[in-house]
Amino acid sequence: MNPIAISQGDPAGIGPELIAASWILRGMARLEPFVAVGSRRVLDEAARHRGLDVPVRPVGSLAEAVATFDSALPVLDLGDADYTPGQPTEQGALLALDALDAATQLTVAGETSALVTAPVSKSRLASVGFNHPGQTEFVGQASGVAPEDAVMMLAGPSLKVVPMTVHVPLHAVPGLITPELITRRSAITARALVRDFGIADPRLAVAGLNPHAGEDGRMGHEDQSYIAPAVAALQAAGIAARGPLPADTMFHAQARSTYDVAICMYHDQALIPLKALDFDDGVNVTLGLPIIRTSPDHGTAFGIAGSRQARPGAMIAAIRLAGECAARRASTTA
Amino acid sequence: MNPIAISQGDPAGIGPELIAASWILRGMARLEPFVAVGSRRVLDEAARHRGLDVPVRPVGSLAEAVATFDSALPVLDLGDADYTPGQPTEQGALLALDALDAATQLTVAGETSALVTAPVSKSRLASVGFNHPGQTEFVGQASGVAPEDAVMMLAGPSLKVVPMTVHVPLHAVPGLITPELITRRSAITARALVRDFGIADPRLAVAGLNPHAGEDGRMGHEDQSYIAPAVAALQAAGIAARGPLPADTMFHAQARSTYDVAICMYHDQALIPLKALDFDDGVNVTLGLPIIRTSPDHGTAFGIAGSRQARPGAMIAAIRLAGECAARRASTTA
Repeated sequence: MNPIAISQGDPAGIGPELIAASWILRGMARLEPFVAVGSRRVLDEAARHRGLDVPVRPVGSLAEAVATFDSALPVLDLGDADYTPGQPTEQGALLALDALDAATQLTVAGETSALVTAPVSKSRLASVGFNHPGQTEFVGQASGVAPEDAVMMLAGPSLKVVPMTVHVPLHAVPGLITPELITRRSAITARALVRDFGIADPRLAVAGLNPHAGEDGRMGHEDQSYIAPAVAALQAAGIAARGPLPADTMFHAQARSTYDVAICMYHDQALIPLKALDFDDGVNVTLGLPIIRTSPDHGTAFGIAGSRQARPGAMIAAIRLAGECAARRASTTA
Repeated sequence: MNPIAISQGDPAGIGPELIAASWILRGMARLEPFVAVGSRRVLDEAARHRGLDVPVRPVGSLAEAVATFDSALPVLDLGDADYTPGQPTEQGALLALDALDAATQLTVAGETSALVTAPVSKSRLASVGFNHPGQTEFVGQASGVAPEDAVMMLAGPSLKVVPMTVHVPLHAVPGLITPELITRRSAITARALVRDFGIADPRLAVAGLNPHAGEDGRMGHEDQSYIAPAVAALQAAGIAARGPLPADTMFHAQARSTYDVAICMYHDQALIPLKALDFDDGVNVTLGLPIIRTSPDHGTAFGIAGSRQARPGAMIAAIRLAGECAARRASTTA
């Protein structure tokens, strides 16, 4: 299998040190070979700053990356840059953008088996001309998918959640929830769980919008007007969807055992339970793409970069999940 | 100390059997003496139906209840009634109302040390003339407190949460969030944590309304317009409040260790994490009353009443917490 490409993220954030930490733990964590895309010098200094003995080796091909992986961290070196943890710069943002672009192109071209993106600063990227809301939209466009069809899933050991709306004010959420949105994104989710996660007949638990899923319309009408028809449409399409369910009783252990993914209506409805249960190991997966793309569910954390405080759990989980999904696609298309 | 009064709840629900199960476990769970207020016959049959060997003994005084508690479940018998699990009746609703009324009056009069209410059916109570939204409002009025000053807290082993709004549609929440509401209810919460929970200087974590607490107004203005001023007012009053905080990162273990109670803006923001973490042991506590009142955080569960499936964890936790709070008040006023 081709190696996984990891874009290095902002060099002032925790991405580079977590890539180095993940390489150290590659055996224990059973990670597929990966290649960092970024700056050899940044990775080298980030590893040393964290007290890690990581030989960072520039490679000239992906075959060389795979051959190198056992003994050194392979890097596709995009150029020299300073490692200044916690101090983002324009030069660093440009490097992060180059790394994202190169790693994405390699994966879209099939040269690498999956894409893992380390965290970037959206506002820093915007200041150097990046005109996408985030990395997900960039990757979606680069792989030829409409923005509304690139679906974000957050996956942890305890729970998978897909929010129907994300970075919008709470007051705007009820107006954005439509049967079409829910049906389309849920169907993309179901297909991805079959193809990339090996779940033959995925069970979708669809949350209500209002308390107690509206109690038959006594507390809001959206559950009946928009969510119930979407669930019916999904069922008619042969998808094992249930709902709208009262959101507050969806996330304890027994309830979670009855479904494979929770379809949620808004950001905090999805992310509160995910982060309450799986804070250190959450992976952001983009579903509906022709490529596999994951990322750790945390930001650049400039405030703790270089201090050895950042935990590598989510980065390792993102790399492992990318490898598992890639292996599954490789085996089914072989 | 006077015994705790437990109103029996709807006789067709899981209340009676859980009272019996709690009595069986009184020693292991270190419960203060309690007296059931309801029907001897219902409690007796509910215990037998569950396979529990519980001697149910009608008592004529609260002193007799305390003296009886070691050897039998004491009951203030309000009259005969049928035990028909899962089949609520008008007669049962009237009995539930009588029990709630009597147990509340005893506690308001100081005859019992605390009030624990077993679950009732709100719609059934309404059909027999009960004109309060729920038991909390009834108890508030009976103890002379304005409805807006009876504050619901949900408490589990992992987390305490206080929702600022509860049973309203999600679209109505942003319009209900005012600085006055947050300040008043948070101050009541802080005082109750000092007096009843023995927390000298309670730390309040105040959630934002919008994703990421609005990101400086980029995703909704309420966090800055309403919540931040409320937090400032609380701080000015000497209360250790912080916020508005991004709600999704408030509920993992490390975050929870930094506060004593989470002040939440709406139903699911509070109840999703509480039930994800503490589903079987959640206690509903009414703060701001002259009396102590708790209840298990579940409903009548007519569907499983009489089937031995209902777990007594929340009822036991409600009784234990009521006893702890009562002991604390008794020791500080002694």
